[in-house]
Amino acid sequence: MKALIASVAVCLAATSAHAAIVTRDVDYEQDGVKLQGYLAYDDAKTKDAKLPGVLIVPEWWGLNAYAKSRAEKVAALGYVAFAADMYGKGVVTTDPKVAGGLAGQFYGKPLMATRAQAGLDQLLATGLVDASRVAAIGYCFGGSTVQALAYSGAPLVGIVSFHGTLVPANDDAVAKNKAKILICHGALDPATKPEQLTAYLKSVNDAKFDYRFIQYAGAYHAFTNPGADAIAEANPGMRGFVAYSPSADRRSWEDMQGFFSEIFAPSKS
Amino acid sequence: MKALIASVAVCLAATSAHAAIVTRDVDYEQDGVKLQGYLAYDDAKTKDAKLPGVLIVPEWWGLNAYAKSRAEKVAALGYVAFAADMYGKGVVTTDPKVAGGLAGQFYGKPLMATRAQAGLDQLLATGLVDASRVAAIGYCFGGSTVQALAYSGAPLVGIVSFHGTLVPANDDAVAKNKAKILICHGALDPATKPEQLTAYLKSVNDAKFDYRFIQYAGAYHAFTNPGADAIAEANPGMRGFVAYSPSADRRSWEDMQGFFSEIFAPSKS
Repeated sequence: MKALIASVAVCLAATSAHAAIVTRDVDYEQDGVKLQGYLAYDDAKTKDAKLPGVLIVPEWWGLNAYAKSRAEKVAALGYVAFAADMYGKGVVTTDPKVAGGLAGQFYGKPLMATRAQAGLDQLLATGLVDASRVAAIGYCFGGSTVQALAYSGAPLVGIVSFHGTLVPANDDAVAKNKAKILICHGALDPATKPEQLTAYLKSVNDAKFDYRFIQYAGAYHAFTNPGADAIAEANPGMRGFVAYSPSADRRSWEDMQGFFSEIFAPSKS
Repeated sequence: MKALIASVAVCLAATSAHAAIVTRDVDYEQDGVKLQGYLAYDDAKTKDAKLPGVLIVPEWWGLNAYAKSRAEKVAALGYVAFAADMYGKGVVTTDPKVAGGLAGQFYGKPLMATRAQAGLDQLLATGLVDASRVAAIGYCFGGSTVQALAYSGAPLVGIVSFHGTLVPANDDAVAKNKAKILICHGALDPATKPEQLTAYLKSVNDAKFDYRFIQYAGAYHAFTNPGADAIAEANPGMRGFVAYSPSADRRSWEDMQGFFSEIFAPSKS
């Protein structure tokens, strides 16, 4: 894999009273596919020490403004954030059929972890990150991806899946997974049937994975995305499937922060 | 109901570097049954303002040292804590058969909420509590009890069940419940079968209750109780049923604190 880190754009975004977040597009490749991720960090904090790193894997829409906004929010928490590109430089869509085709290349295939690993490599290659304190978070398709990435044995101390399709642990995952797991799940997510939930939980119990599985009342698929209601409006087939939940968004973000406090302070647990 | 508040014992326990916790046994009655609860609060904090109040309902063993220790820990967080007596003054046991008989008087009966309400009344009668910011937490049998108490329409902003048997919401509960709900559940708790879990979640979804349901990996029944392993050792019938989990104990306590931050700051949600 050739890594081509190019400063395509550098900007300073004031995301809070105290943090000035540096963001930068990062070009890279995986197996000949040209990709462009999005790096974000607090420049003041990286001067002092290497920081925990967080890979962000987008929803099936690709690396859009929403995914980038999450990277900026993670950076504002004091971590180096890298939003991965899974599809190819500039490939984003708002059409569920196109998104389904793009995401469909990855589900159940080794490429899901391999492509995400290429993003993780970019995060580590920044030189800003403490390699012993790296996590991955993902949304919907990206939630499944970070599960697959952890199961492939990637050097992650933790993963967080937000409304991701649940990936039961198989024998290979049992042998390789090193990550603690936080699953933030909409209690009304139609993508997961009760029997799938039961099967998933049995698999991670049998695997003896260290996880916390949280269900949020009233939350559908895509509950963290403020644009979910507009998506449902524009796509009748997605009505009753995706919806934004301000309370589940806020609570799951808080739960992620508690999880980070634990996994990024290894002596505590 | 006659309330007889008697200062049977007052002591100062230093539970942290900064808090000096006052504790006091409190005698009261419910329908002629003499009860004795346990009040705990930080004397320095109650001087300034009325504080949020937290009712604690013990495991099926009765109001023992473990339940009192939880009241002290809640007080150290800055709340007025009252550990309720469900069985009668001084009635505690370490024998599962006796405990089963004692708890069996309450399951599925209105007395479960009524007896707990008597404890809640004592908490409110202290004059130390902001009545608009009162929650209840409970352990095992007490976890079921706080669900029943909330479902009875008690003026609670929230409840937390730690390894409590799940109480599905019925029509009466839907009409009366005012509380937000946090369920802290052991992922390996043998007291709850997958189909019971599914039925519980369906009931609270249908009821549109505002809840967060958290499953902790590797955790059995009684996972918060450091004495659980000794209980299993002394009672062969409870082996493989109860076990202490330091990580699930710590995580659920943190999750409770996050929940309290939300429910005791009503403007936030």
